[in-house]
Amino acid sequence: MTLSSIYIEQKRNLKSVEKRLEVVLQAPDPILKEASLELLKAGGKRIRPLLTLLCAQYGDPEHDQVREAAVMLELIHMASLVHDDVVDDSDLRRGKPTVKAKWDNRVAMFTGDYIFAKAIELISDFNNEEVHLSISKVIRDLSLGEIDQIKDLYNYHQNLRVYLRRIKRKTALLMALSCQLGALASGCSSSVSKKLYYFGYYMGMSYQITDDILDFVGSEKQLGKPAGGDLKNGNISLPTYFAMNVFGLKDTIISALEDDSATDLKWNQIIQAIRTSGAIQASERMSDAYLQKSRDILDQLPQIKVTQSLKEIADYIGTRNY
Amino acid sequence: MTLSSIYIEQKRNLKSVEKRLEVVLQAPDPILKEASLELLKAGGKRIRPLLTLLCAQYGDPEHDQVREAAVMLELIHMASLVHDDVVDDSDLRRGKPTVKAKWDNRVAMFTGDYIFAKAIELISDFNNEEVHLSISKVIRDLSLGEIDQIKDLYNYHQNLRVYLRRIKRKTALLMALSCQLGALASGCSSSVSKKLYYFGYYMGMSYQITDDILDFVGSEKQLGKPAGGDLKNGNISLPTYFAMNVFGLKDTIISALEDDSATDLKWNQIIQAIRTSGAIQASERMSDAYLQKSRDILDQLPQIKVTQSLKEIADYIGTRNY
Repeated sequence: MTLSSIYIEQKRNLKSVEKRLEVVLQAPDPILKEASLELLKAGGKRIRPLLTLLCAQYGDPEHDQVREAAVMLELIHMASLVHDDVVDDSDLRRGKPTVKAKWDNRVAMFTGDYIFAKAIELISDFNNEEVHLSISKVIRDLSLGEIDQIKDLYNYHQNLRVYLRRIKRKTALLMALSCQLGALASGCSSSVSKKLYYFGYYMGMSYQITDDILDFVGSEKQLGKPAGGDLKNGNISLPTYFAMNVFGLKDTIISALEDDSATDLKWNQIIQAIRTSGAIQASERMSDAYLQKSRDILDQLPQIKVTQSLKEIADYIGTRNY
Repeated sequence: MTLSSIYIEQKRNLKSVEKRLEVVLQAPDPILKEASLELLKAGGKRIRPLLTLLCAQYGDPEHDQVREAAVMLELIHMASLVHDDVVDDSDLRRGKPTVKAKWDNRVAMFTGDYIFAKAIELISDFNNEEVHLSISKVIRDLSLGEIDQIKDLYNYHQNLRVYLRRIKRKTALLMALSCQLGALASGCSSSVSKKLYYFGYYMGMSYQITDDILDFVGSEKQLGKPAGGDLKNGNISLPTYFAMNVFGLKDTIISALEDDSATDLKWNQIIQAIRTSGAIQASERMSDAYLQKSRDILDQLPQIKVTQSLKEIADYIGTRNY
């Protein structure tokens, strides 16, 4: 079972999610509609809906609420991306102009609010208190993650715990929820849904660490934006943390971050120094440790076909380069 | 029963709502906490929680969910205010600097997102599908109202329907929900809760029209900001609509709105012209018509003491000057 065969196998379901997203995002206002549908067309790996669909195979995958959960999770993800781009002042995502770049912050704000409101509408269809509680906690943590992203900028002295909490809020909890809801919506037992939650959580931590590594080692083409962007914007991610605190680059990095006139040449030298410092390998080790935890949980689940698919996804997370 | 005696009677309950708001808004981040608590201290009439508490008297007002509903409604209102100030580019609200003015748009965005997330957390405690559906529809419409506020700016040709839809989304639906949830949370019948919904809806329409009138006739001290601000910002509210389409001021108003160098003197002349044109009286008549509809609904409800209080509130809406 390779990753692409998983996508092929889930093609019909993913297409159905995509169609439903398109219907849900039919907005009554032309700008809003255009912004929403562009976000949709910009694509992405739809990893959250995929996780939901897969985890639903531990129960009854044909249950109506499975697709609705997948759609709702992608909506929450999209809404948070639009607001994140305002917070990060990002002009490009996946090689395309962001909503806030193409229009402005106000449009990005209301587009995010609208997509989020549509997600809330779908949530109200779920008749399960556990589902409501889980979703609302993740929403709260996503909003705290937004704040972390600003608060932790240029904070050179943040410790590892602060970084890990940030990526947990920003990424891992929504992946955990994607797995958990797939289980709950398909009628799995509470024990299976809890395990899948933790599988998604550990995998999500690894996923975000990998993202943060790729921001240093990826090419502009792979990333859809120039490499090293996180660092230049003052976002101290795991490779930078290790470079500063373990591999002796603290003064170099701080002086560049505090120098408004630092040239591209200077930045490229620093990015190169981080790449070769050992910080990337150290980050990869941490990503691998999370991945191993996610695999361990899979071992505790029924060894049905989908367990193999989830293992494949974990392997992909560990090796992906885009 | 005067308005102040209603507030006095509900003092204990409102204080309890206020305390709960303060607890809920204890944020883990200092800026967020400060911004949230300042919003709370800026006060406001707490008309939404008051409506919820009053409408709960048609059922069992001691039900736990009554206070939670009141708190949740005020949170949704606060979150939408913070985002509205970004959309409107407003620096002052109730005479105090807005979050976006004191910090910036990004802080306003995440503060609104956070307060909204806290509201969602409270919603998840309600175990009633009708409640969830009602809330989610209002949230969607509030987000559409945000967009209307931008889309309809400087749109001189908007008809009355567009204005009414905008204030419905922006104000009336949340007031309708405040009444409805008071009823549902206290265990009222569906028939009573529906009536209270419409009472809140009609009253909310009147409330917003009155707000829009006050923006022309109120003093800077009463408004907490200079008069005529809506018009200067291109917001075509009901008095402007009437002045343009019924009282012959269309060309005067359009030429001022299109003149970036229009002086304060010029604006004051126009505001004075609108005040004396008959547009204010025409707007008041429309507000009164909505108010009468809300009173008619009260006549259909059990004539208990709280019905008298709601009549008092409707009378206040019709005469308020702040």
